[in-house]
Amino acid sequence: GTAPAIDAMAEPGAGFTARDATAPARPAGRRHRVELRVQEVQREVAPGVRQRLWTFNGTAPGPVLRGRVGDTFEITLINDGSVDHGIDFHAGALAPDEPMRPIEPGQRLTYRFTATAAGIWMYHCSTMPMLLHIGNGMYGAVIIDPPDLPAADREYVLVQSELYLGPDGEPGDLGKMQAETPDAVVFNGYVSQYAHRPLTARPGDRVRFWVLNAGPNRTSAFHVVGVQFDTLYREGEWHLRPADPGAAQVLDLAPAAGGFVETVLAQPGHYPFLSHLVADAGRGARGTIEVR
Amino acid sequence: GTAPAIDAMAEPGAGFTARDATAPARPAGRRHRVELRVQEVQREVAPGVRQRLWTFNGTAPGPVLRGRVGDTFEITLINDGSVDHGIDFHAGALAPDEPMRPIEPGQRLTYRFTATAAGIWMYHCSTMPMLLHIGNGMYGAVIIDPPDLPAADREYVLVQSELYLGPDGEPGDLGKMQAETPDAVVFNGYVSQYAHRPLTARPGDRVRFWVLNAGPNRTSAFHVVGVQFDTLYREGEWHLRPADPGAAQVLDLAPAAGGFVETVLAQPGHYPFLSHLVADAGRGARGTIEVR
Amino acid sequence: GTAPAIDAMAEPGAGFTARDATAPARPAGRRHRVELRVQEVQREVAPGVRQRLWTFNGTAPGPVLRGRVGDTFEITLINDGSVDHGIDFHAGALAPDEPMRPIEPGQRLTYRFTATAAGIWMYHCSTMPMLLHIGNGMYGAVIIDPPDLPAADREYVLVQSELYLGPDGEPGDLGKMQAETPDAVVFNGYVSQYAHRPLTARPGDRVRFWVLNAGPNRTSAFHVVGVQFDTLYREGEWHLRPADPGAAQVLDLAPAAGGFVETVLAQPGHYPFLSHLVADAGRGARGTIEVR
Ligand SMILES: [Cu+2]
Ligand SMILES: [Cu+2]
Ligand SMILES: [Cu+2]
Ligand SMILES: [Cu+2]
Ligand SMILES: [Cu+2]
Ligand SMILES: [Cu+2]
Ligand code: NA
Ligand code: NA
Ligand code: NA
Ligand code: NA
Ligand code: NA
Ligand code: NA
Ligand SMILES: [Zn+2]
Ligand SMILES: [Zn+2]
Ligand SMILES: [Zn+2]
Ligand SMILES: [Zn+2]
Ligand SMILES: [Zn+2]
Ligand SMILES: [Zn+2]
Ligand SMILES: [Zn+2]
Ligand SMILES: [Zn+2]
Ligand SMILES: [Zn+2]
Repeated sequence: GTAPAIDAMAEPGAGFTARDATAPARPAGRRHRVELRVQEVQREVAPGVRQRLWTFNGTAPGPVLRGRVGDTFEITLINDGSVDHGIDFHAGALAPDEPMRPIEPGQRLTYRFTATAAGIWMYHCSTMPMLLHIGNGMYGAVIIDPPDLPAADREYVLVQSELYLGPDGEPGDLGKMQAETPDAVVFNGYVSQYAHRPLTARPGDRVRFWVLNAGPNRTSAFHVVGVQFDTLYREGEWHLRPADPGAAQVLDLAPAAGGFVETVLAQPGHYPFLSHLVADAGRGARGTIEVR
Repeated sequence: GTAPAIDAMAEPGAGFTARDATAPARPAGRRHRVELRVQEVQREVAPGVRQRLWTFNGTAPGPVLRGRVGDTFEITLINDGSVDHGIDFHAGALAPDEPMRPIEPGQRLTYRFTATAAGIWMYHCSTMPMLLHIGNGMYGAVIIDPPDLPAADREYVLVQSELYLGPDGEPGDLGKMQAETPDAVVFNGYVSQYAHRPLTARPGDRVRFWVLNAGPNRTSAFHVVGVQFDTLYREGEWHLRPADPGAAQVLDLAPAAGGFVETVLAQPGHYPFLSHLVADAGRGARGTIEVR
Repeated sequence: GTAPAIDAMAEPGAGFTARDATAPARPAGRRHRVELRVQEVQREVAPGVRQRLWTFNGTAPGPVLRGRVGDTFEITLINDGSVDHGIDFHAGALAPDEPMRPIEPGQRLTYRFTATAAGIWMYHCSTMPMLLHIGNGMYGAVIIDPPDLPAADREYVLVQSELYLGPDGEPGDLGKMQAETPDAVVFNGYVSQYAHRPLTARPGDRVRFWVLNAGPNRTSAFHVVGVQFDTLYREGEWHLRPADPGAAQVLDLAPAAGGFVETVLAQPGHYPFLSHLVADAGRGARGTIEVR
C-alpha cells in the first residue's frame, strides 16, 4: 500500500480528544518510580490517518515525567513490542552500555538515574536505527525544574516531532526519514490538534510553554501569535527574564533541544502558536490558545 | 508558463538601484502613525527575472519601522490588493482576533500597539496560507532600540528571505514553498544586490548590521568576511559586547528571529557578507560592504 | 561514472587509522608560523569509497591551529593544486581584498593576522564557488583559548562537514551541494570513524569537545549519549559553567559556528556521540568515546 495523504486543514471527528498538554505537577517525594511499557499500537495521527506507532505507554510522545534537581528516577522498561527496543534518558548521566542496551520482546530492564541538572530533557528509544525508532513514536520529555522556577498560572508542554507516513495503519517510512521529507510536523503527536481543541487560559494569566523538539530532523521555531516571550530558558540557561528590556519572538530549538518561554495573555481572544518555520506550520505544527 | 531560471551571477542592468539598506533614524515623538498599503506589483527580483509580488507599500520587504520601548504605533492597513490580506506585528502584544483578521480588497483596518520590549521584530501578512503570503513578499521589520543602545557610525538593515518563483511576472509557487526548494535567498528582496551595489563605510567605522530572518523556511547564518562580531544581540538579549574576550563569526537566526551584530571595519577594502549556509550564499544571500 | 553509494554501517579495513582528534597543545611563543599547502589528493572518506579532495596539507579538515588572544599568525599559503585557491581565516580581521584573493597553481601568498578574540574559528578556501571548495575539503579550525579557560583532562576537536560524492576517485558533485543532498555527514572527514576507532578517556576525566561546524550547509546538534554538558561555550560566549544548576543536552551550531562543551565521564563504558539531527547520525555524524 501507499502512504495516505494528510489534509492538514481537515477537521477531526466529533469524538476527537486532544492530548492533554497540561504540564504534570511535580510529584511529591524525591524518588520517582515509573513503568514504561513499549507498546506497538495503531493510532490516529491526523484526521482519518492511522499509523502503527511504537510507543512508551501507548502514546507518542510518551508520558511527561517531572522532578527537581537531586531527584532519583527508577524506570522499569518493559518491551511488549515485536522487535528490540531500549531507552536513553538525557536527564541522567550514566554509562550507556548496560542501561541503554536493546532488550528483546518480553524482556524488561531497570534504569536508574539521578537528575543532577535542570532543563527539559528528551528521552527516546536507544535501539538502532534510532531514526526509525524515534521517527515512529519513541520519544518523550522529562522536566527537571530549575531551583528558582517561579510559579506560573498555567503550564503546558508541547513536544514537536515529525511524521513520515507508511501505508495506512502500518509503521512509518524509514526512507522518508532518511530523505527528510516529513508528511507532517506536529505538537504532541497529532496534526494541528490544538487548532481544533484549543489550549485555554484566563485573561491576565502568565502561561509557561515547555517545548521539546524531539525531531528527529527539523529545527523548531516556536512562536505564539499576539504575544512576546518576556521569559526564555533554553538548554539549562536563563536567557530572558521579565525585568529585562528585551523579549523574544521565537524559541528556536535544534533537534533534541528544549526549554520554556513565558508570556502574559492579557486579553481574551484566540492566540495561534506555531513553528515559524512556516512550511512546518502548514504541515501541522500549529495550534491555538484560547483566553476567556 | 514555467518559472524563469535565476542566474545568481548575472549583472543587473545599468539603471539598477539597490534598495537602500540604511537603517532609518528613530523618528521624533513617541507616537508613530504609519500607513501600510497592500499593493500587488510586478518587481524585478534578480537580473531579468520579474515576479508579481504582494507587498506592503510596494516593496518586499515592506518599510522598516523604528521606535523605542514605550512608543505606540498606529498602523492603518489598506488592502489595495485582489485577495484578502491582514497584518501581524511581532513588536506588539494584543489579542489577534480583530487586528489580525483578514480584510477584503478595498477594506482598511487600524492596528495599534505599544512596543514594550526591545529587539528587531518581524511583521507579516496574517492571512492563511501564511506560507504563500510571506513567501510572496508580505514581510518587514520593526526595530525597537534597546534602552542602552550605543551609537554606531553606520547602521544597516538586512532582511533575509526566500524566493520561490512562479512563471515570469506571476506570483510565487506555493508548491515550491511547501517543498522548501527556493530559487533564491536574498537580502532585502533582490538576488546579490549589494554584491553589485555595495554598502559603504569609512575606515574605522563601527558598523551595526540589523538582521531579520523573514524566512519563511530557512535558517540564516549571517557572516561578514574579514571581520569578527565584537557585539551580538539576538532576540532581545545581549550576547556579546566589545569588552568581552570572545567574539562571534556567525549570527544565526531561525525563521522569524532577529538581532544585530557590530564590527569595526578598520581597513579600506571590500568585505563580502553572506549567509554562511553556503548554498544560500550561492542563491543570492550575499553582498559586499566597501570601505574607503 | 556515477558516485559510489556509502554504506554507513560498513567496517573500514583492518589497517584503517582514524584521524587523531586530540586537540593540539597551545604552542609555545606568541607568533605562529604555519605553511598551508593546497594539495589535491585521493582519500578514502568511507569504507571503500575514495574521492579526490582539495585539502590544506593533505587532509580534510586541514590542520587544527591554536593560540591565545593576542597571538599573531603568519600563514604561508602555497597552491600546489590544479586550479585557483585562496584562504579566509575567521580568526583574524583584515580587509579581504589582498590576503583572500585567489592564487594560481604554483603561486604562494603570506597571510598575517592577530587573534584578537577567543573562540573556535573556521578557516576555508576563499575562492568562488566557495560551496565547491569547502564542499570538496578546504576547511579547518583555529582555536583561540578564552583567557580563563580551565584545564581539562582531555580535549578533542571534532569538525563536522558534509560529503557530496562525485564518481569514485573524483572531486565532489557541485549539483548535490547546491541541492543540499549530502551522501554523508562526518566528524573529521570520514564516515563514523570514531565508532570504529573510539576516542578514549579514563573514568572521572573531564573531557572538553571543541566542535566546529564547517557545513557547508547543515546545522549540527552535537550530543554525547550518557552525559550532560555542564559547560557550554559557543561563538565567543560562556553559556554554561559547572556551578550553574542547568546543563545542556545539545550544542547546536549553524554552519560556520563553533564552540566547546565539557562533561565528566564518571563511569567506564562506551559513550556514543552524534549529531542529534538523527538523519545525519545515520549518514556518519557519529562516533564513540570509550572510557576505561
Ligand atoms: Cu525502539
Ligand atoms: Cu509571525
Ligand atoms: Cu497577505
Ligand atoms: Cu567564512
Ligand atoms: Cu579552493
Ligand atoms: Cu538522544
Ligand atoms: Na497541534
Ligand atoms: Na521584559
Ligand atoms: Na544581497
Ligand atoms: Na571583544
Ligand atoms: Na565520526
Ligand atoms: Na551544573
Ligand atoms: Zn477545528
Ligand atoms: Zn540567549
Ligand atoms: Zn473561542
Ligand atoms: Zn556586479
Ligand atoms: Zn549567546
Ligand atoms: Zn571599490
Ligand atoms: Zn567498527
Ligand atoms: Zn545560551
Ligand atoms: Zn571497550
